[in-house]
Amino acid sequence: MKTETRDHILSCGSKIIHLKGYAATGIKEILDAAKVPKGSFYFYFKSKEDFCVALVEHHRKNILHGMDLALENRDLPPLQRLQDFFAEVHKLHAVMGYKKGCPVGNLAQELGATNPLVGKQLQNVLDAMTLRITAVLEEARERGELPIRLKPDETAAFIISAWQGAFVQMKAVSGPAPLDNFMAMVFDVLLV
Amino acid sequence: MKTETRDHILSCGSKIIHLKGYAATGIKEILDAAKVPKGSFYFYFKSKEDFCVALVEHHRKNILHGMDLALENRDLPPLQRLQDFFAEVHKLHAVMGYKKGCPVGNLAQELGATNPLVGKQLQNVLDAMTLRITAVLEEARERGELPIRLKPDETAAFIISAWQGAFVQMKAVSGPAPLDNFMAMVFDVLLV
Repeated sequence: MKTETRDHILSCGSKIIHLKGYAATGIKEILDAAKVPKGSFYFYFKSKEDFCVALVEHHRKNILHGMDLALENRDLPPLQRLQDFFAEVHKLHAVMGYKKGCPVGNLAQELGATNPLVGKQLQNVLDAMTLRITAVLEEARERGELPIRLKPDETAAFIISAWQGAFVQMKAVSGPAPLDNFMAMVFDVLLV
Repeated sequence: MKTETRDHILSCGSKIIHLKGYAATGIKEILDAAKVPKGSFYFYFKSKEDFCVALVEHHRKNILHGMDLALENRDLPPLQRLQDFFAEVHKLHAVMGYKKGCPVGNLAQELGATNPLVGKQLQNVLDAMTLRITAVLEEARERGELPIRLKPDETAAFIISAWQGAFVQMKAVSGPAPLDNFMAMVFDVLLV
């Protein structure tokens, strides 16, 4: 029961912060959305920052679990799995009206440089995402399916950058064009 | 004199918002930094949002002016000018301790999807930046210096995405690695 309430508060707060950002979201707004009293919030989280730390951990689990599910299916060729993964995430953002971006990238942009604790946590998530893509590119290289000019680790970090930046541009246009261009440039140009 | 005071408030507010973000910065903090009374702020700006609109215009002018200076020097080959431009911006971020990112990308990430007025303004700046890079890539193509697989407009938009995303990652690591990787991937791999 305790874990359920904590998860419920996290889930409600997550949705608001995902759209509006951390500084623009007040604890009261999270309480109202979760329909819990203030004391309940402070029973589970010492402070708003403590809530943010829990939120990043919540996103870390979800994102890496989703990546593992999509990227570890060895029935498909590695680059196909990578493309399918990004295409699935693209669809999720269509459902959200292209307004929310990556919850980890948003927080990295907002807090990465000013909050060392959360910044380090976000760096770890971005590194873990990059490692998963590196592994897929290494598998492609072993199968002779990666252009020789590409180093798996540098290419993976570049793909993560381009993806995060596509979200920045997506928010300004509130439309799919930057994600579409990412897909075309990565899968029809860079990895070919 | 009036313009000077307005520019002074903009410049002081710009520095704070560049590091902390829009929502996390209060008007009082800007007044304190600029050493002007509240009435002076409201003489020049109707509201915090009005200040933000002026701030984006301030960044638009500075960024596009800097790009024009760097990219229009026809004494150097187009791709060399592009590389020199990004190398110069990279140096600016070293001076800022890799903590601030792109002022336009930061605001696009924070407000692009939730403030249509500012979002549209930011989209226009990102489009103008993309157009300048497209022009350089078109010039390179005319000189036979752009790989045939690359379309100038799509490649330019992808470079802007990768650059904005490198800043997101740069903040999480508070170091140059993501910008270094951007430079290597764009100028030693993608455009080669």
